[in-house]
Amino acid sequence: MNSFQFHNPTRIVFGEGETRQVGELTATYGRNVLLVYGGGSIKATGLYDQTIQLLKEAGITVHELPGIEPNPRLATVQKGIDICRKEGVDFILAVGGGSVIDASKAIAAGVPHEGDVWDFFVGKARIEKALPLGTILTLAATGSEMNGGMVISHWEEKLKRGSGSPLLYPKFSILDPTVTYSVPRNHTVYGSVDIMSHVFEQYFSLTENTPLQERFCESILQTVIENVEPALVNPSDAAARANLMWCGTMALNGGQISLGMQNDWATHGIEHEVSAIYDIPHGAGLAVIFPNWMKYVYKERVDRFAQYAERVWGIVRDGRSDDELALAGIEATRAFFTRIGAESRLSEFGIGADQLDRMAEEAVRYHGLGAFKQLEKQDVRNILEMSL
Amino acid sequence: MNSFQFHNPTRIVFGEGETRQVGELTATYGRNVLLVYGGGSIKATGLYDQTIQLLKEAGITVHELPGIEPNPRLATVQKGIDICRKEGVDFILAVGGGSVIDASKAIAAGVPHEGDVWDFFVGKARIEKALPLGTILTLAATGSEMNGGMVISHWEEKLKRGSGSPLLYPKFSILDPTVTYSVPRNHTVYGSVDIMSHVFEQYFSLTENTPLQERFCESILQTVIENVEPALVNPSDAAARANLMWCGTMALNGGQISLGMQNDWATHGIEHEVSAIYDIPHGAGLAVIFPNWMKYVYKERVDRFAQYAERVWGIVRDGRSDDELALAGIEATRAFFTRIGAESRLSEFGIGADQLDRMAEEAVRYHGLGAFKQLEKQDVRNILEMSL
Repeated sequence: MNSFQFHNPTRIVFGEGETRQVGELTATYGRNVLLVYGGGSIKATGLYDQTIQLLKEAGITVHELPGIEPNPRLATVQKGIDICRKEGVDFILAVGGGSVIDASKAIAAGVPHEGDVWDFFVGKARIEKALPLGTILTLAATGSEMNGGMVISHWEEKLKRGSGSPLLYPKFSILDPTVTYSVPRNHTVYGSVDIMSHVFEQYFSLTENTPLQERFCESILQTVIENVEPALVNPSDAAARANLMWCGTMALNGGQISLGMQNDWATHGIEHEVSAIYDIPHGAGLAVIFPNWMKYVYKERVDRFAQYAERVWGIVRDGRSDDELALAGIEATRAFFTRIGAESRLSEFGIGADQLDRMAEEAVRYHGLGAFKQLEKQDVRNILEMSL
Repeated sequence: MNSFQFHNPTRIVFGEGETRQVGELTATYGRNVLLVYGGGSIKATGLYDQTIQLLKEAGITVHELPGIEPNPRLATVQKGIDICRKEGVDFILAVGGGSVIDASKAIAAGVPHEGDVWDFFVGKARIEKALPLGTILTLAATGSEMNGGMVISHWEEKLKRGSGSPLLYPKFSILDPTVTYSVPRNHTVYGSVDIMSHVFEQYFSLTENTPLQERFCESILQTVIENVEPALVNPSDAAARANLMWCGTMALNGGQISLGMQNDWATHGIEHEVSAIYDIPHGAGLAVIFPNWMKYVYKERVDRFAQYAERVWGIVRDGRSDDELALAGIEATRAFFTRIGAESRLSEFGIGADQLDRMAEEAVRYHGLGAFKQLEKQDVRNILEMSL
């Protein structure tokens, strides 16, 4: 186990109907609020109306930034920053999934920053100040509701980059599983793949002596695997939705499940390059790429992959070698993603080989990619080719 | 899963040698510090000298309260409160195990309170303000380093009571596993029993639909079970000490592993009555009583106990009923505690039947005892009798 620091100040308010607390919680921090959201789904479900009413009852002035894209764009973030500056906004309320929350974080960091907010994503500036923000989560997926990270797309340059700061931990996040009953089938699938992928990035690690962390990772993986199909069969399955929601948060709440472990994050890096150009859902890209990353790297630590097969998928050793078990576990992953309805090839999104070089080059541009196995440009290209 | 709120603001600084950060961390919060510690162990190991030097280098004035008892006493807490008031102390630094940290919390809450600090422990007052505190943990056991709870003994009245507040979460806790290399064998054992017992109090619950929480609990139990004996064989086993330390913190950091589950805490309540009178180590009392509590209550939810046997102890079902599995898991618990050297009967501490009535009565005095099975006075008496 490596040394670590951990400090996660986000307040979680979890449970059916807890969205009713949004007025009171928000009023603790601000009086002049930017409400950030995506498409029309929160209007269709009534969450928008409820939130507006509760904020107004709490005496809060509300400005709005609708239209956050599934891969949130820099230009939209800039719009939000402009509103905040013009209106003197003192708190940001994100109502949505990871995209809405990430965009809100970028706005929060951008408002007090004199330069371009993109600076934070290309290593040109550090986040020194930020507006406070809170969230109502509407999709179990990214964990952004309890961490300080964010990913933004520069659409014109076809770049998608991550950044973050301890200043960007939400002050509160309301997790009401009933809000996710209306999540469409494909986003329930992609969100679940995203949760599992966050765990993979932490679990497949070269760090020695992390038995508790490994078990925490396995706990989340097993619980997601058990609950995805019930949520697909019955989108209002209260138990399944609550479990997926809590798994999503715990999978990436400042890295708590894997403290003291070196994380990988290569597959996220590769997927970002794909969705930066092709604008496919992040979870869809991960479902295609992750099993191929696994096949490409598993020999770096075949015992961890064998453990994954046995503990997460319940594959019985039955005389098999670690290598055989590892491959069986990877196959089980691919089969599960396919069974729940995730795509297995980039070609299903109309993606061909023409941008492979560009994606591979961008993926390794800023820093070494991966820790379980450090990937060079050719490695990324190989994994993308396996994924076509 | 029930609704819940969670907010844990403690900063954890974990790793070999991280005690060197104590000056800088403390200086963030205070300039006039009360250093609270127990017996001579931190002097023997050099931790006392190091801490004093680092605090002085950081420009901090240090007052001292040594001599915190293993079951920390109200009179000692009162001494600390007096020092803080007289000297205008603005921060409390606890260097020790749970007893030292709990005493420090009681002092922190007592200083700004006009009435008797014992008011907080008997429901006569609520904690509205507290001095900030930080900790250097020297024993993997209570979790007090990352929660807002505390337990104090009123020695003259032979009472031991718990209280707590969100205001009492330490601002920081330094967890340096090397500091625990010198922990004596019996306290390594009792600390490990305490960690497992904290998990038991959360895991044996009637709340439905908590698969992730159950697995988190099982993760800690399995990891403690794996690591106790290596730490006993080689007290400087870096991996074992680090794992036990992190298990101890995660087992009771504001209840994070069991959010949304009703907890029990009856066995802690019973043990407190035993150690209030007989001053035995808390973990020793738990090792005696917990297996008997299990036998007494397991039929309330035999499936959870069967799951415990299978997942934590790896007991194969092999045609056995839930009831048989449950009993096998309880037996495995008792056998493990015995194997690592914990006592199995109160009579080994010279405790007889003469105070059973008093202990049973006190255990149920303030509120219903237990949630998995609500215990009445006679139930407590029965469990204590099984434990003699």
